Amino acid sequence: MITADLKNELNSLTPLFQPNSIAIIGASQNPAKPSGQPLVSLTRYGFKGRVYPVNPNYDTLHGLPCYPTLQDIPDQVDLCIIAVPAHMTMGALKECADKGVRGVIIFTSGFAEVSADGAAIQQQITALARSTGMRVCGPNCMGIFSARNALMANFFITELPTKVLVPDYLGFISQSGGFGVAIFQIVKEKGYGFSHFVGTGNEADLEFSHYLGYMAADAHTRVIGGYLEGVKDGPKFLNALDMALANEKPVLLMKAGSYPASARAAASHTGAMVGSEKVYSAVFKQKGVVRVESLEEFQNMLSLLHNGKIPRGKRVAIIASSGGIGVMLADKCAHYGLEVVTLQDKTRSALAALLPDFASTANPVDITSAIMTQPGLLEQCAQIVINDPQVDMMIVAYWTELGDKGNLDQMIRVAQQTNKPVFNLTWGPDKAVFEALQYMNSQLAPAARELDSIVKGLAALADYHNFVRSRRKSKLVAPEVPSDAREKVAALLGNLPRGAKLSEHSAKQLLQAYGIPTTREQLATTGEEAADAAEAIGYPVVMKIESPDILHKTDAGGVLLNANTPDEVRSGFNRLLDNARAYKADADIKGVLVQQMLPAGIEMIVGIARDSVFGSTVLVGMGGIFVEALKDAALRVVPVAPLDAMEMLEELKGRRVLDGLRGMPPSDKIAMVEVIQRVSRLAQDFPQIAELDINPLIVFSEGRGACAADAIIVLE
Amino acid sequence: MITADLKNELNSLTPLFQPNSIAIIGASQNPAKPSGQPLVSLTRYGFKGRVYPVNPNYDTLHGLPCYPTLQDIPDQVDLCIIAVPAHMTMGALKECADKGVRGVIIFTSGFAEVSADGAAIQQQITALARSTGMRVCGPNCMGIFSARNALMANFFITELPTKVLVPDYLGFISQSGGFGVAIFQIVKEKGYGFSHFVGTGNEADLEFSHYLGYMAADAHTRVIGGYLEGVKDGPKFLNALDMALANEKPVLLMKAGSYPASARAAASHTGAMVGSEKVYSAVFKQKGVVRVESLEEFQNMLSLLHNGKIPRGKRVAIIASSGGIGVMLADKCAHYGLEVVTLQDKTRSALAALLPDFASTANPVDITSAIMTQPGLLEQCAQIVINDPQVDMMIVAYWTELGDKGNLDQMIRVAQQTNKPVFNLTWGPDKAVFEALQYMNSQLAPAARELDSIVKGLAALADYHNFVRSRRKSKLVAPEVPSDAREKVAALLGNLPRGAKLSEHSAKQLLQAYGIPTTREQLATTGEEAADAAEAIGYPVVMKIESPDILHKTDAGGVLLNANTPDEVRSGFNRLLDNARAYKADADIKGVLVQQMLPAGIEMIVGIARDSVFGSTVLVGMGGIFVEALKDAALRVVPVAPLDAMEMLEELKGRRVLDGLRGMPPSDKIAMVEVIQRVSRLAQDFPQIAELDINPLIVFSEGRGACAADAIIVLE
Repeated sequence: MITADLKNELNSLTPLFQPNSIAIIGASQNPAKPSGQPLVSLTRYGFKGRVYPVNPNYDTLHGLPCYPTLQDIPDQVDLCIIAVPAHMTMGALKECADKGVRGVIIFTSGFAEVSADGAAIQQQITALARSTGMRVCGPNCMGIFSARNALMANFFITELPTKVLVPDYLGFISQSGGFGVAIFQIVKEKGYGFSHFVGTGNEADLEFSHYLGYMAADAHTRVIGGYLEGVKDGPKFLNALDMALANEKPVLLMKAGSYPASARAAASHTGAMVGSEKVYSAVFKQKGVVRVESLEEFQNMLSLLHNGKIPRGKRVAIIASSGGIGVMLADKCAHYGLEVVTLQDKTRSALAALLPDFASTANPVDITSAIMTQPGLLEQCAQIVINDPQVDMMIVAYWTELGDKGNLDQMIRVAQQTNKPVFNLTWGPDKAVFEALQYMNSQLAPAARELDSIVKGLAALADYHNFVRSRRKSKLVAPEVPSDAREKVAALLGNLPRGAKLSEHSAKQLLQAYGIPTTREQLATTGEEAADAAEAIGYPVVMKIESPDILHKTDAGGVLLNANTPDEVRSGFNRLLDNARAYKADADIKGVLVQQMLPAGIEMIVGIARDSVFGSTVLVGMGGIFVEALKDAALRVVPVAPLDAMEMLEELKGRRVLDGLRGMPPSDKIAMVEVIQRVSRLAQDFPQIAELDINPLIVFSEGRGACAADAIIVLE
Repeated sequence: MITADLKNELNSLTPLFQPNSIAIIGASQNPAKPSGQPLVSLTRYGFKGRVYPVNPNYDTLHGLPCYPTLQDIPDQVDLCIIAVPAHMTMGALKECADKGVRGVIIFTSGFAEVSADGAAIQQQITALARSTGMRVCGPNCMGIFSARNALMANFFITELPTKVLVPDYLGFISQSGGFGVAIFQIVKEKGYGFSHFVGTGNEADLEFSHYLGYMAADAHTRVIGGYLEGVKDGPKFLNALDMALANEKPVLLMKAGSYPASARAAASHTGAMVGSEKVYSAVFKQKGVVRVESLEEFQNMLSLLHNGKIPRGKRVAIIASSGGIGVMLADKCAHYGLEVVTLQDKTRSALAALLPDFASTANPVDITSAIMTQPGLLEQCAQIVINDPQVDMMIVAYWTELGDKGNLDQMIRVAQQTNKPVFNLTWGPDKAVFEALQYMNSQLAPAARELDSIVKGLAALADYHNFVRSRRKSKLVAPEVPSDAREKVAALLGNLPRGAKLSEHSAKQLLQAYGIPTTREQLATTGEEAADAAEAIGYPVVMKIESPDILHKTDAGGVLLNANTPDEVRSGFNRLLDNARAYKADADIKGVLVQQMLPAGIEMIVGIARDSVFGSTVLVGMGGIFVEALKDAALRVVPVAPLDAMEMLEELKGRRVLDGLRGMPPSDKIAMVEVIQRVSRLAQDFPQIAELDINPLIVFSEGRGACAADAIIVLE
C-alpha cells in the first residue's frame, strides 16, 4: 500500500536531494578530508545552488566567503553538511534546527558504531530530528550524490566521468561505505549514469527505505540498486517496494547476512538489525525484488538492463560457435528455469541455407567454425533466430581474438535492431575478452563472460517481467470477511492479558469469525452434555480435553478418536478428565470438546508468526512429517495478496501431494488460498496475535473445501 | 577396482603418446590444413622421434623425404596420422594394420556425425581396431598433444608458449573440438602447462575413459580435466576414476547435457550417449570427481590448484577491506558449506594491536580503509590470520587501483609462505582488476574476481580432500554375505525366462540368501495351512495374496492386516482368493502369504535399477509420500562401498526422520547401511536383475535392525 503519509514523508527528503543552498559546518581547506572535499566538488562540477562554508577560523574558503556560525549566513539554508568531531555534532545539529534547516547530512563518525556513549549521542540526534521534522542522513555516512543538479554532498566522489553512456539510469543506496564506493567506481567506469547515490550510515533518522521510496518516486531514476544488511522499519520498506513496483522500476538488492555467521558480521559491521533471512526472502518474493548475490552479478544485471530490453517470457535461443559451449549454455538455461525453445521450421530452414552441413540448426544452434571464415554469417544467423516469434531472448556465444571486432560489430547491429534482449557471451584469452567486453559495453550491447550469472540474470528478469505483469493483470480479489469479524474477535480477545494462550475451542471461534471453516463442535462440562453434543453433531465423534494449560493434548492423553455411541462418549469424558488431572493436577479444565470426525484429506498447517522487523507473517506448510523433517513451509508478510497465496502453495516441496498422488484426486487449492488470505486478514486486524497454529488444516479434494481440525493462539 | 586388464589396456595407448616414429598419410604442404599442420609443428617444437610424410605427389615435404605409401617407409612406424578424405580412410587404416602400426589418429571427419553411410564406415574402423588391437583415436578428432616429448600429433596447436609457469600440470580430454581449442588457448595464456591434451572425436575405438586412465597413471600429470558429454562404457570410466583416486589426482569435469534440452543438443552434437544425469551425478559423488559448470569455474579451479595447496578442512578465514564485501563473502562461504570459523583470542588481539578501533577482528576481519594508508598492514594481518591453527584456508578481498601493486606484492608473499590455500578476491574497475589478476596469476598467487566460483571452488576442494582422506582412512568393511548366497540365488533364478517377475515370497528368498532380514512368513495354499502358519509365526499376522501376476497387491484387495485369530485367518484366506479372482480371473495364484506383523518403524525403500551405461545401480529413499512427492532418493552405481552407503543416507532430504523426530528414537542407520551393501552385492553378482524394489524396508530404532516387509524383482 502506498499511503499519503508515505508521499508526504518522501517530500521531506527534497531538501537533501534538491537543495538551493548548502552550508558546511566544519568546512576545511583540505580537499583530502571529508570536511574539505564537498566544497571543492560542489564548486567544480556545476552545482547551481549557493554554498556556504561555516568555520570561525577562515574568512574565505576555496574562494567563497566563510561564516563563523550557521546563524551568520544571511540566507535560508536548505541542506547542511555537518563535518565536526563527534562531541560537537549535537551542538551543530541544534544550530541547524534553530536556523530552520530542513535537511542535514552528518559525515561525522564515532556514534552507535563505536561505543555506548556514541549510541547515546545518536539517540539525541534521532530525538531532535523527530521533534523538529528536520531530516537527517547519517551520522557516519558518506553522503549523497545526485547527478542532474551535480549535488556533491558527499566526500567519496572526487571526480565525475566526462561522458555518461546511460544517463538517469541507476539510483543506489548503500549500507556499506566501502562497498558503496566500489559500486560507484565500477559502475561509473562502465559509463552507466547514477541518478542518485546515498551512503546511509547509521540511519539515526532517515533509513534505507526512505531513500528507496524517494528513488521509486523519482522520474529520473530507472533502476534502483542497493546493498542492504537490514531495515529498521519493515512496513516502511514494504511501502517503498510497492512504490517501485507501481512505477515498474526493478529493484536489485544485494542482501547480506543470510546465514548466522554472516548475520553476526553484519550486526557488528553497521549495528544493523539483520532480521530473519526467511522473512527477507519472503518479502523479496512478495514485492518482486531481484536479488543479486555478488558484485559481478550486479554488474551483469546492469549490463542487461541498460537498454531497457527485458525478456517478456522464458523462451531462450542459443547460438554458439562451439557445440560444447552451446550444450553448457543449454544446461545453465534449464537449470535457471529458462525454456530452450524449439525453433520454428521456417527459422531452421533459413539457417540451414546459410550454414554448413555439419552445423546444427536446432536450439542451441551450432554455428560452427564457419563463423571465422564467412564474414557476416553470425549477424545473418542471429537476425534469423531473434526474429523467430517463439524466442523471447537470445544468448550468442563466440570465441574472441585480440583486436578482432568483426563478430562484435555484427552483434552490436543485431542487438540494436530488436526489442528482445540479446546477450553476448564472449570467451577466449583474458586480454582479448577484456577488450571485447569493454568495446561491446561501450556500444551498449550487453556482454559478459560469466555464463552462470548471465543466465541467472536473464532468468531473474524474465521472472520480474512475469511478476509485474501477473500483478497488473490479476483480477483476483481477496475473499470477503464477515462484516462483524473484527468486532467479534475484539470482544473475544477483550480482556485477555498479554501472553494469554487460547486453547482449541476459543481459537476456533476467532477463525470462524473470519470465515475460516472449522469442525462442528461443542464444549461439554459433563458426560451427559457430551453425549447430547455427540448426538447433535453426529457419530462418530472426536473428544479432546479443553484447557489453556494443556496445549499439547496428545501428550496428556487428552484426545479420543472415533467415539461411536453415547456410552463410549460418557466413559470417554471421564477418562479424558482423569488423564488430564494425572498430567497436570492444577490445570484449568474448561471441559471436553466434542467434535465432528473429519473425513480423510491432506494435512496442512497454516499459521501466524511475528517478526521483529516486519510484524505479522503467515506461514503455510505440509503437515505432519513434512514440516518437521523438511521445514517445508512458505512464508509471506501480511497482507498476503491472492497471487501471493497461490505462489506460497507452488513453493512447497510437497506440492505434488496437493496435485494428487497414487491416484488420489487433486486437493482443493482454492480453499487453501482462501484460508491463507483470511488468516492474513486476521493477523492484519489483530497484530497482538503473536502465534496462530492451525494444525492440522484438513484439505479435501477439489471443490470440497478445507477445515481447521485443531488450532491454538498465543497473544503477544 | 583397478584391474590388471585395465593396466594392460592403458599400455596399449603408449604408441599414441610416446611414439618414436610418426607417419602422416595424406600429408600436405599447406600448414593451414589439418594435413599440413602437424608436419610443421612436429619439426618446429623439438619432437625427437622420426617423422615420415606419406603422399605419392611429393618427393619431399617440409624438408623431409616423402613416401608414396606407408609400406615404403623403411622403418617401424609407431603412430600414424590419417588425414585423407573419408572414403579413403579405411584403405589407409588397412595399410596401417598391414604395416604393424600400433597407434592411429584419424583427423578426417564425415563419419557417424554426418550420415548413416559415415556411421557404417566408422563401424568398419571399430571392427578393424578390435580385430588387430591397433588403437585408434578419432575419427573426426583434433588429435593429441604431449608436452614432455613435444608430440604435436594434432592440427589445432599452431604455437607453443615460450614459458610455462606450471609444467606437468594439466591433462585435458575434450569431447568438443571448439571447446577443447578454447580451453587450450585460455589455459596456455595463463602459463599453466599441459601434460597431454586429447580431442577424442567420434571415439570409434579409444574413448574418453582410456585417456582418463592413461593420464591417471601418468607420472607427469598432476590434475586431470575434461569436457564430457557422455561415456560409452560405464565400468571403464569407473576404473579410470578409481585409478585417478588411487593416485590422488583431482579430476575436474565439465559434464554437459544434464537436462533434456541440453542432452538432446549433446546427442546431436557428437552423437554421444548422454545417459542419465542422475547416474552421472551419483558416479561423480562416488569417485570424488570435482564437477565444474563453466569455463570460468574451470579457470578458477586451475588457479586454486596450481600451487598444490588444497584446503585440509572447511574452516575459512576472510579478510576484507570493506565490511560489506566481508559479509557477502561470509554469506557465500556459509552457502557452500564452509565454516566461517571463530578466530583464536590470540589472533584477534594480535590483529587489534595493528588495526584501528573501528575495524573488526572477528571473522570476517574488516581491515577497513586503513589498508590504503598503512603500508604493510595487509601482509601483517594476513600472516596473523593464516597462522591461526583454526584456519584451513583464507580469502582476502581488497580494492584494486590501476598500477598499484602494493597490496598484490604483500599477498604474493603471504601466499608463498604458507601451506594453506590463500585466495585473493580483487575488485575494482575492470581494467585495474584485469591487470591485477594477470600479475597475481603470473606470480602463482591464486586470484580472481568471481566471488561465487572462488568460494564454490574452495569448498569443492575441501570436499575433495575430505573424500580422499575418508576413503584412505576408512576401516569399514562390507558385511559378509553367506558363502552359499550366490549358489542359492543362481538356483532360484535358474530357469526363469527373460523379463520374469518374482512376487513377494520368491523375491524375499533372494534377499534372505544375501543376509537381508525379511519378515517371518509362510506360503499357505489352504485356509487350514494359513491358520497353522499364523500359529507358528505368532499373532497378529499380515496376509497377502502371492501371485507373479499381481504385483500391486493393495490395488487388488490382496492384503489383510492384523489378523488375530485362526478364524480370522481362515476367513481372510478365502476373502483374499475371492478378491484376487475378481481382480484378475486368470492370475497364477501361488497361495496366501502369512507373515509376521512388524512393529512400527520408519518406512524406507531400497532398490536396484539398471542404467544403460553404468549397469546396476542401488537406490535408497524415504518411503511413502517422501519418495512420491519429493523424489527423495539417493543413487550409487554398483559396487556400493560402506562409506558410499553412509553418504547415501546423509543425502536424503528426509534424513532428519532417521535422526528421530517428535521425540522418536534415532533409527538404525547401521542396519540400513548394511542392507544397502548386501543389495549392492546381489546386484553385482546378478546383473540380470533389472529391478528390485524393497518397499517398504522397515527400519527400527538404533540397534534393532531393519526388515524387508515387501519386495518384488524383475529380471532383464
